[in-house]
Amino acid sequence: MLQLSNEERIIAIDLGGTKIAAALVSLDGEIMCQEQIPTLAEEGVDAVISRLLAAVDRVVGQVDPPPSWLTSLAIAAAGAIDAENGIVTVSPNLPGWDNVPLKAILEEATGAKVFLVNDASAAALGEYRYGAGRGVENLLYITVSTGIGGGIVVNGRMYAGASGTAGEFGHMTIDAGGPRCACGNTGCLEMLASGKAVAREAQKRISQGVRTRILELAEGEPENITAKLVAAAAERGDAVALEVIDRAAYYLGVGLANLVNIFNPEMIVVGGGMAKMGDMLLEPARKVVAERAFRLPAERVRIVRSQLGDSTGLMGAVAYAQQLAGSV
Amino acid sequence: MLQLSNEERIIAIDLGGTKIAAALVSLDGEIMCQEQIPTLAEEGVDAVISRLLAAVDRVVGQVDPPPSWLTSLAIAAAGAIDAENGIVTVSPNLPGWDNVPLKAILEEATGAKVFLVNDASAAALGEYRYGAGRGVENLLYITVSTGIGGGIVVNGRMYAGASGTAGEFGHMTIDAGGPRCACGNTGCLEMLASGKAVAREAQKRISQGVRTRILELAEGEPENITAKLVAAAAERGDAVALEVIDRAAYYLGVGLANLVNIFNPEMIVVGGGMAKMGDMLLEPARKVVAERAFRLPAERVRIVRSQLGDSTGLMGAVAYAQQLAGSV
Repeated sequence: MLQLSNEERIIAIDLGGTKIAAALVSLDGEIMCQEQIPTLAEEGVDAVISRLLAAVDRVVGQVDPPPSWLTSLAIAAAGAIDAENGIVTVSPNLPGWDNVPLKAILEEATGAKVFLVNDASAAALGEYRYGAGRGVENLLYITVSTGIGGGIVVNGRMYAGASGTAGEFGHMTIDAGGPRCACGNTGCLEMLASGKAVAREAQKRISQGVRTRILELAEGEPENITAKLVAAAAERGDAVALEVIDRAAYYLGVGLANLVNIFNPEMIVVGGGMAKMGDMLLEPARKVVAERAFRLPAERVRIVRSQLGDSTGLMGAVAYAQQLAGSV
Repeated sequence: MLQLSNEERIIAIDLGGTKIAAALVSLDGEIMCQEQIPTLAEEGVDAVISRLLAAVDRVVGQVDPPPSWLTSLAIAAAGAIDAENGIVTVSPNLPGWDNVPLKAILEEATGAKVFLVNDASAAALGEYRYGAGRGVENLLYITVSTGIGGGIVVNGRMYAGASGTAGEFGHMTIDAGGPRCACGNTGCLEMLASGKAVAREAQKRISQGVRTRILELAEGEPENITAKLVAAAAERGDAVALEVIDRAAYYLGVGLANLVNIFNPEMIVVGGGMAKMGDMLLEPARKVVAERAFRLPAERVRIVRSQLGDSTGLMGAVAYAQQLAGSV
């Protein structure tokens, strides 16, 4: 069992569309123990909250002395957050979550003080406090995964906007006449540079009769193709896979150039599954930024990989609680 | 002659590519007297600074008692500003202005404390403190004129980025395969929704043989066509002019939808010459935002015309000095 003093730890939760992670985190950023369970979002709001509380219990159960010290619970959730009232107003990844007063529900259930924040906004703050952005006052976090989202840190503080939805970098139109996105918009960055876009482009080329090892890695089934498989094929030198990733990197660069011109940030931290490709994705994207953005901000910005990786949500939640509480 | 106590006024300067405005402004936002002269930027840095100082002298000359009270001078300049060192690092509109230590030069010349700020960033702060955005903590200012620029206010403070160039909304790619911009990028908002874009589109249609009153208003000379003439023709019901403005409004809407998704701002203030078209431009742009941006931020944002109009730069400079000095 872990033994802790009262001041140094917080329970952090990352509530995503596919999994719930809960962890005990020390305030200097160390994850001391962690539990992970599937969200099973389709079972509805109450079921998800029960599972979330069970995950908290399992983390708490690993600590001695138990519950008396559970004073702070920080939760990063995949959805628009009304921070003032602690409400998940809407979530594309958590069906049925319309105006759920999650903060009040969890405070009632646990007796702890609850801090609720959007996961991508929190991620930006997490990288700022614990990750790639330590010492950087103005940074953007962009997660390039199945979809694309993001968060903003300005003057060392998270900026979440008037309704808690700021940072939707994936739904920036970069090709007005481009493909229709599920969000209703057209030519969104997410349609052109996300994991989904990479898989779709590979499938399209294969359906046109192009030969590539991607199909082999997908065991002959185009519907099995993921960005990860395309990356694996590219690493083995497959020309089609390299082209598909270059195309995504080009569009990512166009989107990042926009963000560089708009924010003139010191740093853009790239996280999410696609970031695991590393320089195969980031180096061509950086070149596009150098070509397209203004010289001054293009020279100023560093475009780097996330350091927190899969823990950005958890660490972001902790950083948010710290921002709000001063100390927790 | 104006008579003033020592606490209530500041000299404000708006240094643009075509004109220099200097004014005596009270801290509650009243412009008490104002001078305006052409910049004649082509005469070089020293000549422009001399003209600027002459404009200040002319404003000062209207006040009694004279120079003793000239303690604060706030200047908004069309260029990237290194705020920490008071330097105009580069300016597309002021040729030759490379790393000009304008703050030091003016402090030496006038003995006043000088506050130097980018004009578009200042404009956002001006609208926040004195204009359309009073009481709004998170707003964007976008100037739609010959070119397109902008400024950002977050949590009631101006955000100018790491090198003082944040807010370049005009150089956001919204059509990656679109026309090449002078900035080196392609499909910039400025290429599709600015006054320049409106004039160019009208000229293009006329060269294709389309009949329109625009040409009549331009006295038969396509090169005389300006966005203002196109607006005048549109007001008289000219179908081609209306189409050209609708096209610009559509692209403006695409750009604003991006900003709404990225910033989730409470307000976007639209200034610059094109904003004088009012709802002819803004109403179709608002509709595009409602269609393309996420529902929550789209419902939250108000897209309004600048209230300060031609004085945004001056009032922004004053607001910036106030932000920096607390009181001046």
